[in-house]
Parts: sequence; structure tokens; C-alpha cells
Amino acid sequence: MVGGGEGAFIGAVHRMAARLDDRWTLVAGAFSSDPERSRAFGLGLGLDPDRSYGDFAEMARAEAARPDGIDAVAIVTPNAAHFAPARAFLEAGVAVICDKPLTTGPAEAKALSDLVARTGLPFVLTHNYSGYPMVRHARDLVARGVLGPIRVVQAEYAQDWLARDLPGNRQADWRGDPDKAGPGGALGDIATHAFHLAAFVTGETPSAVSAETSRFVAGRRLDDDVQARLRWAGGARGQLWASQVAIGASNGLRLRVIGADAALDWSQEEPDYLRFARLGEAPQVLRRGGPGLSPAAEGATRLPAGHPEGYLEGFAQIYADAADLLLAHRAGQAPPDRLSGLPGVREGVEGVAFITAAVRSAAADGAWISLSEEAA
Amino acid sequence: MVGGGEGAFIGAVHRMAARLDDRWTLVAGAFSSDPERSRAFGLGLGLDPDRSYGDFAEMARAEAARPDGIDAVAIVTPNAAHFAPARAFLEAGVAVICDKPLTTGPAEAKALSDLVARTGLPFVLTHNYSGYPMVRHARDLVARGVLGPIRVVQAEYAQDWLARDLPGNRQADWRGDPDKAGPGGALGDIATHAFHLAAFVTGETPSAVSAETSRFVAGRRLDDDVQARLRWAGGARGQLWASQVAIGASNGLRLRVIGADAALDWSQEEPDYLRFARLGEAPQVLRRGGPGLSPAAEGATRLPAGHPEGYLEGFAQIYADAADLLLAHRAGQAPPDRLSGLPGVREGVEGVAFITAAVRSAAADGAWISLSEEAA
Amino acid sequence: MVGGGEGAFIGAVHRMAARLDDRWTLVAGAFSSDPERSRAFGLGLGLDPDRSYGDFAEMARAEAARPDGIDAVAIVTPNAAHFAPARAFLEAGVAVICDKPLTTGPAEAKALSDLVARTGLPFVLTHNYSGYPMVRHARDLVARGVLGPIRVVQAEYAQDWLARDLPGNRQADWRGDPDKAGPGGALGDIATHAFHLAAFVTGETPSAVSAETSRFVAGRRLDDDVQARLRWAGGARGQLWASQVAIGASNGLRLRVIGADAALDWSQEEPDYLRFARLGEAPQVLRRGGPGLSPAAEGATRLPAGHPEGYLEGFAQIYADAADLLLAHRAGQAPPDRLSGLPGVREGVEGVAFITAAVRSAAADGAWISLSEEAA
Amino acid sequence: MVGGGEGAFIGAVHRMAARLDDRWTLVAGAFSSDPERSRAFGLGLGLDPDRSYGDFAEMARAEAARPDGIDAVAIVTPNAAHFAPARAFLEAGVAVICDKPLTTGPAEAKALSDLVARTGLPFVLTHNYSGYPMVRHARDLVARGVLGPIRVVQAEYAQDWLARDLPGNRQADWRGDPDKAGPGGALGDIATHAFHLAAFVTGETPSAVSAETSRFVAGRRLDDDVQARLRWAGGARGQLWASQVAIGASNGLRLRVIGADAALDWSQEEPDYLRFARLGEAPQVLRRGGPGLSPAAEGATRLPAGHPEGYLEGFAQIYADAADLLLAHRAGQAPPDRLSGLPGVREGVEGVAFITAAVRSAAADGAWISLSEEAA
Repeated sequence: MVGGGEGAFIGAVHRMAARLDDRWTLVAGAFSSDPERSRAFGLGLGLDPDRSYGDFAEMARAEAARPDGIDAVAIVTPNAAHFAPARAFLEAGVAVICDKPLTTGPAEAKALSDLVARTGLPFVLTHNYSGYPMVRHARDLVARGVLGPIRVVQAEYAQDWLARDLPGNRQADWRGDPDKAGPGGALGDIATHAFHLAAFVTGETPSAVSAETSRFVAGRRLDDDVQARLRWAGGARGQLWASQVAIGASNGLRLRVIGADAALDWSQEEPDYLRFARLGEAPQVLRRGGPGLSPAAEGATRLPAGHPEGYLEGFAQIYADAADLLLAHRAGQAPPDRLSGLPGVREGVEGVAFITAAVRSAAADGAWISLSEEAA
Repeated sequence: MVGGGEGAFIGAVHRMAARLDDRWTLVAGAFSSDPERSRAFGLGLGLDPDRSYGDFAEMARAEAARPDGIDAVAIVTPNAAHFAPARAFLEAGVAVICDKPLTTGPAEAKALSDLVARTGLPFVLTHNYSGYPMVRHARDLVARGVLGPIRVVQAEYAQDWLARDLPGNRQADWRGDPDKAGPGGALGDIATHAFHLAAFVTGETPSAVSAETSRFVAGRRLDDDVQARLRWAGGARGQLWASQVAIGASNGLRLRVIGADAALDWSQEEPDYLRFARLGEAPQVLRRGGPGLSPAAEGATRLPAGHPEGYLEGFAQIYADAADLLLAHRAGQAPPDRLSGLPGVREGVEGVAFITAAVRSAAADGAWISLSEEAA
Repeated sequence: MVGGGEGAFIGAVHRMAARLDDRWTLVAGAFSSDPERSRAFGLGLGLDPDRSYGDFAEMARAEAARPDGIDAVAIVTPNAAHFAPARAFLEAGVAVICDKPLTTGPAEAKALSDLVARTGLPFVLTHNYSGYPMVRHARDLVARGVLGPIRVVQAEYAQDWLARDLPGNRQADWRGDPDKAGPGGALGDIATHAFHLAAFVTGETPSAVSAETSRFVAGRRLDDDVQARLRWAGGARGQLWASQVAIGASNGLRLRVIGADAALDWSQEEPDYLRFARLGEAPQVLRRGGPGLSPAAEGATRLPAGHPEGYLEGFAQIYADAADLLLAHRAGQAPPDRLSGLPGVREGVEGVAFITAAVRSAAADGAWISLSEEAA
Repeated sequence: MVGGGEGAFIGAVHRMAARLDDRWTLVAGAFSSDPERSRAFGLGLGLDPDRSYGDFAEMARAEAARPDGIDAVAIVTPNAAHFAPARAFLEAGVAVICDKPLTTGPAEAKALSDLVARTGLPFVLTHNYSGYPMVRHARDLVARGVLGPIRVVQAEYAQDWLARDLPGNRQADWRGDPDKAGPGGALGDIATHAFHLAAFVTGETPSAVSAETSRFVAGRRLDDDVQARLRWAGGARGQLWASQVAIGASNGLRLRVIGADAALDWSQEEPDYLRFARLGEAPQVLRRGGPGLSPAAEGATRLPAGHPEGYLEGFAQIYADAADLLLAHRAGQAPPDRLSGLPGVREGVEGVAFITAAVRSAAADGAWISLSEEAA
């Protein structure tokens, strides 16, 4: 693991998620930009002293040289610190599991994409919400044509933890600092999740974005509210709203997909449920572990219906899938079909394109910006 | 009543709403554009034969001449047929209760506005959702500054009854016909309600709109989906989505208003509830008839908490308020303060400006269109 | 109308309900036990002075003698004041619409039942919750065998308005006074509604009750909490809970009916919805005005789906049905099939039997008491 | 671990729960009553061959003799197979984590209780629902007197997976077999959870039970539906319903506690929320990770609000607490106060008393049976 030391949030999540299904063991890490604190943190986690590294470069070199070196590295640093370790480990021949967004700009994203293509190494981007069983069932419903042609895609991601200034809060600090977070605030932190979720479920290609961004809290340097419209290549239209000032909302990621024949509605805060309605029929409430689910959903499920699974289980699914991806890679096999949607470097490039295009659109009074050009 | 004959929907609603609180009695009407059917329908309702008119012009003349002439006329015709009867009754000195949108274009809206100013007659526009007690409480919370400066205003109005072509359905037919509905489909029918609701609750002035409209159902001549952004004069930003193709949604009008200190969330399909959250406190579920409500809410309430009130009761409130407005007018008094938000011709002019500005914006790839210029 | 004067709650409800569908006009009444106030109240409602009576006996005599006498009387007095006017009007040949419970004891209930049998007059008991469209759909689903044999019937009715003593509250006063309310507090006021609802929906016969009653608020003379079990003749078992001290509950009447093949779940505070689940299938949310409903539901509906109907509309349905029942009676016809479930004197007798049996059971430490014997 | 081999459900849950917080490592086990399959299963989990035992007795002897023997054993067998291994490990000086119910009869429960008292060893009973943060917050609210004197305790636990016969289903088979499950079906499997939850949250002592049990599915040998009333020593009254035939319910454990001043309402299927209402105030929706929570809730929380935690996290909390309990024991210290509610052998004895008393009551037509005598 790279990052995730003292005071980090997502690093601990990665560790719990990796542990849950017993597919991964944490054996090495560089947890902090301060070498001393990095090593101390690793020892605190019970790692071997010689695998508690002072920095990621040392770790990449050393682990690549060990006969029992790591199978993959998890990069859980702030956005601007994804690129360098990802490159270092890929170049050292190590598979990468990287937090999102991939990078803070399209050039670096392209560079990583090229490097993955050249090395052929597994690369997983932890758009963890795509690990939820009911999200996978939603994707399956769309893919099987149950919804008919997609017309409207409404995505939102509302939080309130940044509704006021939080001086001294480490999580808030780096997310509000362009040097660490990149050009997007809410854009990079949460809108990119909503964007990925919409693309993941619909299987459609977003073609252009028109955005308005705001900085509602005085002194804020990056956006804390994004209101965008997306045009999708297949003709669908939709809004995307991401806000960090939405009082009353905790982690309100919601996706509604409306086709010509049916529609679905999923909320991250009730992840075990998927509301599904066919035109002219009474809506159904599908639930994880319940009747009528796809293998995609059932394969991502641990517990019977009514025994709630949550954020960690969804996140763990990404780790379990990454393990399978790695095993296939080791065996020289193509990844199994069921992993086709697992987010990787391509989704990372698309997410970075979305962020930069939205920033450009907002600066141009909401002018439509092509996403394919941005990603090119 | 003008309109609301055989096969109409909203006319029957107006009649039930007017009756509920025993403030109005239906005594005269011109219910159809066909004089024979108009008279027959009036007789069927039990009206006197000599007050079952063949057309609105005849009715306006005759009622104005009677010593016991009507106190007010309710105009419940399709959009394009609001202007002429409204003008006729105003000119005959009769107060008007008119369905929305006011007219199909800004010139007519301006003409009615001028006529109301000149005659001084009461004019009520049935934006009925502003009659709900919890909507009035929401408005009161904002007005008292409980939310702090408004940052985000999210409005949506989702329906699915037009998700496919409905040949031969009278309600669908006129709403899809530009000659009867005006330039907006979903725009005029439902987006304008959401627009009014947002302005009513926030008390803020919308300054500009950027819109994308779609016609998803083949052969449709007017929009069936609207995705707009609004800029508000006070600095707030927000999205508005109105759709008639949103499968699974029946009459899903929802408003979220987010301030710097608190936020509220109201859904028309659960009208007795208002979700209210202060920053840093557990959210509350306020309910009609429950503790802690404003006089504005309590004054619009008929039943104790837990005894659901619905659409007709909210609509009835507009009629009850219209009665009070008329009584004040008769007495030569200014309307009581509590009626200050009752939608009238001003709100009608603003709504028409919204519709026409959104149409223009959509035609210009989402360019921002000023609402004040449009209304001027 | 008898009762429903100054400070009454349910009288005003009856008047609005009767008015909504324009099937009834209030023309006469005895609104108070004080003749002066009774007459004054009638004048205040706009009644003719000679039909604003001082007491019900005078009214029964006078109206029976008028050529244009009332078609039916609505009795909306406290429980102990149902019997005498009901008898008086029946004996005067006037149809009766009576609030529940029918009487405060089985002997009076039996007497009214005999009188109805003898006179053949229409008699409607306003178990208003049976007027909701989705309740009628629920009854229809059970009747058509969709649920299979009924196994479990769970009913509850939770309120909190009596969670503390309310000195000087008129509604609380009479409900807590055995001389006015009869032997049951929560039992008579709300448990009897839940009991009727369960029988109405399931179409089954409750055979015995075992009950525990409490008086949680100091000084209370009648029960404010009832916890009962019911045995049903067909083999079903179920609990019934009624409470007036359930803080957080407003008017929480809920019924769950579980069969061998399917189950349903209805809550009065969301009356437009009915949750329906078949074994092995994803649950559905049926809604008033939506697809797949029975004629019984559609016939009790005024508005499209998504336009909430509430308590008054459900209550109004009882009045509309009573009008149809009266018309059939006038025409010398049997009531139409669709009115077969309309609660009348039989349901009144059963409800009184339930109350008295529950009181006896509670006094006997929860011993099972036969309902058929109680009603005999 | 004892039990939890091929085809088991709860064993895998225990393993994930133990792993999540990295407080426990599985190093030894006897997973099946068949020695061959037991050892093979252990090897399949990656255990050392010499710690993959053929039966629990061998395991207890061998582990007790090892210098690196297990710190505790998790017993996850069917009910009737709890007693023997629990006794064996306690006698071998090993702490025990045991699934519920403790035993299938009071004599064995008493014997274990005595043995725990004699050995002083930590003993944890996995009433896992008491591990949920919001359940702990509920307990804290009651303990601090926020609710006032408790009046009503309504508990229910509804499932539908046994609504029909499931021949060949291992989970159904043992639960329906009195030799493996003991005298209770739904009673032992789920009602005992609801019973414990009610006692855990209220901190009150249940004094007597009156129960009706049913076997709705033909051929079933144990109850699949329980309808009980409980009297609580402090004067509270309440119903408990547990059903395995409640179509539409998955794992519907719900608890409502109503005091004189406030009430709370918690549902296992939405474990992150707690509805809280003070008399005369608008209800609040408290949520895990949100504002205003007790240390008891915060200490059992892993993720911020809006990042759902579920069944495994709640279960994991029991394991984390068990680790702390063991550490205190090892250090010769009294358990920290915060573990005072952790369910152990006392709660096991009470649960068994509840089951046997309910069985006796049901056989006696619902007669009240004292729980303290049953437990004695």
C-alpha cells in the first residue's frame, strides 16, 4: 500500500475491504510522505520492518526485487500523488490498484494508459460503487435491453460535510488544495464517481458536458458544487449534480436511468435495493439476495437478503475482482467476461477527461465541451 | 367556470376543490367550445338552464348584467384558451381564477397583467402546489432566514404518462398540440409548476435560464423532457428537471432548497411531510398538523397529523384563499398579509417568461437567457 | 346531522366528506346537547332556522313529517350518544349514517340491529378507512384468492396525542370518560377501527380475542394501550396493537395480511400505496390510480396516480356509497354487489362484541374470549 | 472454530466478521461432525494440517496443550451442538464465543453458566444485532433516561424464507428438527434475537410471557410463527412477533421502545438509522456517523455517515468487543464499562428461559409464565 497512514480515511477502508474476503494480505507499504512516519505506521500495522518503507520508490524497487514481492500495490494517496507511484510500480512490473481520479490531468492519465498497454499489467481503479451487487444488476438489466433505448440519465452525489469551512481537517485540506486535488473539488472527489456510475450502469458513452460550478463557501479555492448536463452518444440526455454543501445529505449518490420501456433508480445509502419499473406495470423493489437477480449481482453478494451489506462489502468486491483479474493474468488468460466492467485505466482516462472538460465548460459559461476530444 | 366539460381532467378538480371548504358554489358555466355540449354539461351539473351558457363571451356579458352575477370565474381551459376568457371577464368586472400557464406567449401575459392593474380585480393563478401546508411552512422557514443565504435550489417534476404515444387521449392530445398548449410541452405543463414552486418557497428571483429540451417519443411536436439550470438573483444556482417520460414516476414534483445554515426537502407525493436539516444536527421530519409549524402552515390545514391531506386539499386552499382575497377586495381593503404569496398575474407573467426563455435557450444550445428581459 | 357542533372534530370531517363528491347537502341538524347552542350552530352553518333543531328527538319528528325531509341522518356524537338518536331516526323511517363504535354495549347494539332488520332502512357505520381505494384493492386481492389461505393478520393503530394528560381538551375528555365513551378507551376509539379493517380486508371471521390493556397515564379511567391476539375462524392468527401513548405516531393504522402465497401491507398514513409480495418474487408497490388495480379500487378513486388522495377522500367514499345504497333502497332494489362490504349495523355489532370481549379478557389476565358468544 | 463447514451459513459470517477489524486470526478448527470432512475443510481454509481437527474434543485437548493454542473458540454449530463443545473448551481453559441460543434447555444453560462462573473465562454469545451502533445508541438513550419510564416495547422479527417447505435445504432442515434446534423453531432462531434486543436496549427485565405459536406449513415439527406478549418488571408491556412465513419480509427485525417522554424505532434492514421522537417535537432521524451520537455508538462505527455499514460490521463489533474482553481478562482486569452490555452466558440463560417459557405458555393456551422461575 502507498498512502493511507495516520489520519487518512480511505486507506483504512482499502485495508478493511481487502481483508474482508480473505483474498489479500497486506505485507508491505509506504504510508506517508515522511519516511519516518511511513515506517512507523507500517510497524504499527504489524508489517515486517524491512517491508515498512520510507517512500514508494524504495518500495517499488525492493518489492520488485524480492522473490516474495507483492502481487499488487494499492495507491491510496491524494489525487496528485497517484501518478508517480502508479508509474513506478507499473515500471517495476507490479499490478496496480489505484484510487480515483486516476490523475490530476489528461497528460498523466494518457501516460499511465500507455504504460498499462505496454506492460500488460492489471490496473484497477477503485470506483468502488460499481462493486455493489444492485449496481451490477442495474448494469445487467440495461445490457440485456430490458430498459429499451436509454432516454434520460439522472445522477447526483450530494454531501454536506464541506458546507462550512473546516480549518485543520486533513481530509478537507487536501481536497480543497489544487496542488493536491487537481483542478476539481467536488468535481474530482464525487462528481467523477457519479459520472463513472452512470457510464458503468448504462454502458453508454458520454459525448459532451455543459457545466456550472460554484464555490459557495468563502475562501474555497475549488468548486464545492457542480451542476452539469451530459449528452450521451446514444441520444440520452441527463443531469449530474454533485455538491459538498447539500445540508442533510451524507453520501447521497443516486442514479436514475430511464429507457423507453423501463427505468431504474438506485441510491447508495440504501445499496441493497434497486427500484425497477416497467412502463404500465407496478414498480418493483428488487433487493440483494432476493429473487430474480442476475449472476452479476449474485456473484457480488455475501449474505442473504435482509442482512444488509454496505460500503465495505461493495469496496471489497473490487478487491475480490482484482484478485481474480490478477490470477487470470498470472495464468496467461484473458480476464473472465464477468470482469469486463471492472474499472481500470480506461475509465480513469475518461474520468479525468470529464473533470477537465467540466472545468473548461464552467469557465466558458456552460458551453458544451466534447468529452472524446478532451480524452484524446 | 369556463372549460372543464366532458372528458376534462382539471375542471372536475377545480369543482371538488372549490366545494371542499364550502366557500364557493358553482352557479354558472360555459364548459365546452361546442355551445350545445356546453349547455348540456351545465344542466348535467344541475345548473339553472339560463346560467348554462353556450360560450364564455355570452356568459361574461350575462353574468355581469345579473344582480346575482358570479363573484368570480374559474378558467380551466387548455393553455391557449386562457387569454380570451380572462380578458373578457376582467373587462366585464369579474374576478378571475385561472389555470396555469397564464397564456401561451409574453404579449398576452403582459396584456392581462395590464388589465388586472387597470381594473384592480382579484386574479388568482392556480399554481395549486403552493396551497400545500408544508410548502407554505417551507416558504416561511426561508423567509424567516432559518436556512441562511440560499445556495442551491433543486427542482424536479417527473411523470411517465407520456412515455409512449397516446393516440386518442384527450389530455395528451391538447398538451402535445402547439396550437393549444403553446410553445412548451413538459415546459408549460409541469416545468412551470416546478419553477413557480421554487420561486414561491425561496422568495428569490430567478434571473436566467439555460435549457436543453428533448422530444423522446417519435412524432411528438413539443418537448417531453426539460433539463434546465437556473441562476437566481441572490447568487443561488440550481437545476430543474421536468419529464413526461420518466417511467415509474407519477406526479413527482420535488423541491430541495439548500441554504448556508439549513436545508429542506419536499415531495408532492408525500405532501404532509417536510424534511428539514440544520447543519450539524440530525434531520427532522416535520409534518402537517404536527408540532412546530408556522401559522402559514396551520392556516392551510384541515385535519390533525396522520390524517393525510392530499392534492384536493392543497388545491382547495387556493380556492379558500381566493375567497378571502375577494372578500377583502369587496370590502375595499388590502389583502391580508397571509395572502401575499398567493399566485396571481405577476406569477403568470414570470411563468410565461420562463417558458419562452427556456424554449429560446434550448434552440441556442443551452445559452443563458435572461428572465427579466424575457418578461419585460 | 346530529352532533358535530362547536369544538367537535369528527363532525366537521363528516361535513367535508359529504360535500366533496356533491352527493349530499346538509339541510338540517341538532348539533349540540344544549338546544340554544345547537340552533345557533346550525344557523352559523347557513341552515334554515326551522331546520336548526334544539335536539335530535325534535329533529327526527320534524324531518319525518316534512315532505322534503332529510334523506338520511349523520350521527357524529360521542359513543354513548349514538344509540338514542339512531333509534329515534330509524323509528321515524330515516336512514342512518352513524359514527363508530355503534354503541357502548352489546344490548344496545343488538337492539339497533333488530331495528334495522325490522325497518329495512339503510344503515352505514363510518369505518372510514374501508373507503380508501387501496384498502378495497387489498380486500379484492384476498377475495380473489391471490394471497392463498390467510395465515397471519397483523394490525396496529398507534397514536401519541394522549401520551400525557390533556386537561380541558374536549376530544380527550369525552374519550376518557366511561359515561361517554363506553368501556373502552383506545379500544373503542381506535382498536375497533383496526379490528374492522382486518375483518374487512381478509373477509374472515374473528373468533376469539385475548387482550392486555393498560392505562399508562396517571389518572386515566380507560385504557390507553391495547395488546391483543385474535384467532380467526379460518385458522389465521394475529396480533392487534392500539395505543394512544405511542410517541412519534400520529395516526398509524397499519395492516399486514400474510397468506400462503402472497402478502400485503398497508399503512393509513400512506394510503395511496399497497405493498404486495408474492412468495419468491420481488415485492411490488401498487398505487392508487396506477396499473393493475381492481374495479373496487378504481371505483373509489378521484384523481390520477401521484395526486395524493387522503383521509377526506376515503371518508367521502363512504358517503358516496351511502348515497348509492340509499338510491337502491328508494328504488326497491338490492344494493349493488360493489357495496357488499360497506360497513353497517352488522359490523357495528361485531365491533361492540370485540370491545366488550377484550375488556373481559383483559380483566381475566388475557383469557381467550369467544367473539361469537359476545356478539350473540 | 467449531462448526461452520461445507454448506453452513453462519460459520462463514463469523469468519468474515472476525477478520474485518483484524483482531482475530483463524488458526484451528473442527468444522464438521464428520472427521474427514472436518479436516478437509480446515485445509481448504488454509489452516495447518495439525490444527485442522477431526472433532471438537480433540481440538480442545490439543489446543489447550499447545503453547500457541487458540485464544478463544467460536462455536457456530446448530443449537443442540453448542453445549458439549462449550463445556469442553471452558473446561480446557479456553474462552468461548458461542452462537445463540446458548443451549436447547435450561439445565444445560445453567450448567454452562456455572462453569463460566467457576472458570472465570470470557464467554460471549453472538446476539450480533447488539453490535450495531444505532442499537447501542438506543440503549444509551434509554439508560440516560431520555425516554422516561418505559411503557411499551414492541419487537418483531419477520422472515419469509420458510413460508413453504424446503426439502433438502440444510439450513431449513436442522432448524426444523427438534433434535438439532431444540424446542423452538422461529422461537429459538429469531424470536430469541428479538427478545434479547428488547432487553438489551431497554435495560429492563422481562418478567413473564404469554405466547401463541403456530406451525403454518404442513409437516413442520416446530413453530414457524410466534405471537407473544411480554410483561416487564418495570411496568412496561409489549408484543413480540416472530415469523418465518411472513411473505415479503427478509430479515425484518424491528424494535420500538416507547417511554413517557420519548420513543425510538429501529429496523435491522436500515441499521444505520434510528428514528427518535420526543413528545411534542418533530421526530428526528439519527444516523450512524452523524451528529449527536453517544460514545457507545461512535465506538462501534467504522465509516462516516452515508457510507452504509451492515450486518457484517455489526457482527464484527461483537468480535472486536470479545477481543477487548479477552485482553482485559488476560491482564487480570475487570472488563471496561463499555462492554457491560456485551451478551454472555447470562443473556444465554435468559434466552433459553424465554424459549422454554414461551413453549409452555403456548401449550397452556397463552397462560402467563414467569421468566424468572423458568430461568431459575
